[in-house]
Amino acid sequence: MRPRLSVDEYTKGILAGDRNTLSRAITITESRLKEDQILASAILQDILPYAGNALRIGITGVPGVGKSTFIEVLGKHITSLGKRVAVLAIDPSSKKSGGSILGDKTRMEKLAHDPMAFIRPSATGLSLGGVARSTRESMLLCEAAGYEVILIETVGVGQSETLVKGMTDFFLLLMLAGAGDELQGMKKGITEMADLIAINKCDGNNKAAAQKAMAEFRNALHLLPEPESGFSNPVVCCSAAEESGIAEIWEHVQRFHEITSENGFLKKNRQLQNLDWMQDSVRQMLEESFYDHPDIKRKLTAVKKAVAKGELLPAAAAQQLINLFVKRTI
Amino acid sequence: MRPRLSVDEYTKGILAGDRNTLSRAITITESRLKEDQILASAILQDILPYAGNALRIGITGVPGVGKSTFIEVLGKHITSLGKRVAVLAIDPSSKKSGGSILGDKTRMEKLAHDPMAFIRPSATGLSLGGVARSTRESMLLCEAAGYEVILIETVGVGQSETLVKGMTDFFLLLMLAGAGDELQGMKKGITEMADLIAINKCDGNNKAAAQKAMAEFRNALHLLPEPESGFSNPVVCCSAAEESGIAEIWEHVQRFHEITSENGFLKKNRQLQNLDWMQDSVRQMLEESFYDHPDIKRKLTAVKKAVAKGELLPAAAAQQLINLFVKRTI
Repeated sequence: MRPRLSVDEYTKGILAGDRNTLSRAITITESRLKEDQILASAILQDILPYAGNALRIGITGVPGVGKSTFIEVLGKHITSLGKRVAVLAIDPSSKKSGGSILGDKTRMEKLAHDPMAFIRPSATGLSLGGVARSTRESMLLCEAAGYEVILIETVGVGQSETLVKGMTDFFLLLMLAGAGDELQGMKKGITEMADLIAINKCDGNNKAAAQKAMAEFRNALHLLPEPESGFSNPVVCCSAAEESGIAEIWEHVQRFHEITSENGFLKKNRQLQNLDWMQDSVRQMLEESFYDHPDIKRKLTAVKKAVAKGELLPAAAAQQLINLFVKRTI
Repeated sequence: MRPRLSVDEYTKGILAGDRNTLSRAITITESRLKEDQILASAILQDILPYAGNALRIGITGVPGVGKSTFIEVLGKHITSLGKRVAVLAIDPSSKKSGGSILGDKTRMEKLAHDPMAFIRPSATGLSLGGVARSTRESMLLCEAAGYEVILIETVGVGQSETLVKGMTDFFLLLMLAGAGDELQGMKKGITEMADLIAINKCDGNNKAAAQKAMAEFRNALHLLPEPESGFSNPVVCCSAAEESGIAEIWEHVQRFHEITSENGFLKKNRQLQNLDWMQDSVRQMLEESFYDHPDIKRKLTAVKKAVAKGELLPAAAAQQLINLFVKRTI
């Protein structure tokens, strides 16, 4: 293992915008070692006053929609406007598939070589909860290092969109024209979460189909209630390959930022996200302490067997275990 | 408060199929009094060997889809075949709206007067978690009292479908033809959970539209993966008002029962449901103990304020509180 720096060295390096120190600090937040977690916590508490100034953007879409190319082109557009951008990823499948999104940096080669950009692949070997925690913390570190826009990529699998939605200001859904894809988005309730839907690959032979899909989505979105943000979620077409529609998307994002800064939604939303984060952490830590408790470990297998067989009422089984756990606490 | 019976009196009354004792026992499971919860637990443990023999069916659909009429007609069909049926409800909105689903028994007047049927309105004043617990327990009591089919109604709001799906063997989704409704089901990911989709109100002027919707759903469902149950979820039309299509639906349910009894899915699914129920109970009880703890109560407001303002890292705040809570446990 690479030697650790002192809390002060990490903090100073990050605040000076040093990419190498930032990278190493993120590695600390991803570590499962107890001493690294304590170190991470100290760094984070130190940099906290300097975090929170970026616009946080979540980007999702099914595999094949062209997320990497889109993020590279959007990222380049943002840096061309003089803003520093950090790209993070939440990929619950990275453990299984071996290859993680963003894992292959060559997929975003231009952006990776841009001095205004910082790209960090998804952490591997962590649970979804662990990835979420680490990504939230990495985001704060990037903000303290002076990145003004954070793009968080996620693959459209399971609960990951909800996690990303819960840690970003703006949620962008990439879609493709064509049978099945609309359904897939609808089915998962993702369209309802999106602040903007972009139909990608609106180019060549696909152009007419993409524009038709755009019209259909616009109609469908009319059925949803007015967003609480005060920003009516637009549906647009773009082509990451032809770099068209990207500037328009960025203008929408800017307008969202203005509207929600003014009406207080941005601030209120982040406060609620912070409280949710705390509540999630409490729940996670409680369960960890519980299932790690030696008395629980000793009993659990037998209790589970009786519950599965229907011999013991599940709620009664839980109560028995809880009594073991909290007997000295309450 | 009505005087309580002894555990033995409740158990004997329930096993003898006495409706009055059954009703009173369900009231005990709905009570939030500590002594009632202990009483309920004792009754449930006693009747547990006699529970589990019913087919458990969850029924959902947006307001206006005609759930009450459908359930009444289906219930009458089931009793006409010589089977005893119990109808329960999960309605998270019952507290807010004042009127609960099933609250007005006159909506199912014929079924309510059927000696082969037992109808129990949704509990009010409980949290969604509390309603879920109480409904699961009521279901076991009804089974011990000899009801062979349990119908659990839920209104299509928030998390209630997931709860009902998690405690039933068969999940039936009622839908209507017409713009927006398909979308609404898709959007919430409910179609994916359904073992059968019934397009209701397939009568009069609405018949053609309902049949078109049926064809569309059949196409859409082809895109979903094959269900683990081994039963390919059918899409059918029915009219509760005209009592058409009901027998066909019941035949599908019977076929599901046969297939899943044979291939082991029914048993395996219930075992997993029991383990989930235990895990949910553990989580709920842990959080209750935590947030009820005097040290936590004393600290929580100040900590929440600091977290919302962004002065204290949410995960660090959680850790501080957890340390207070488990200091004497671990």
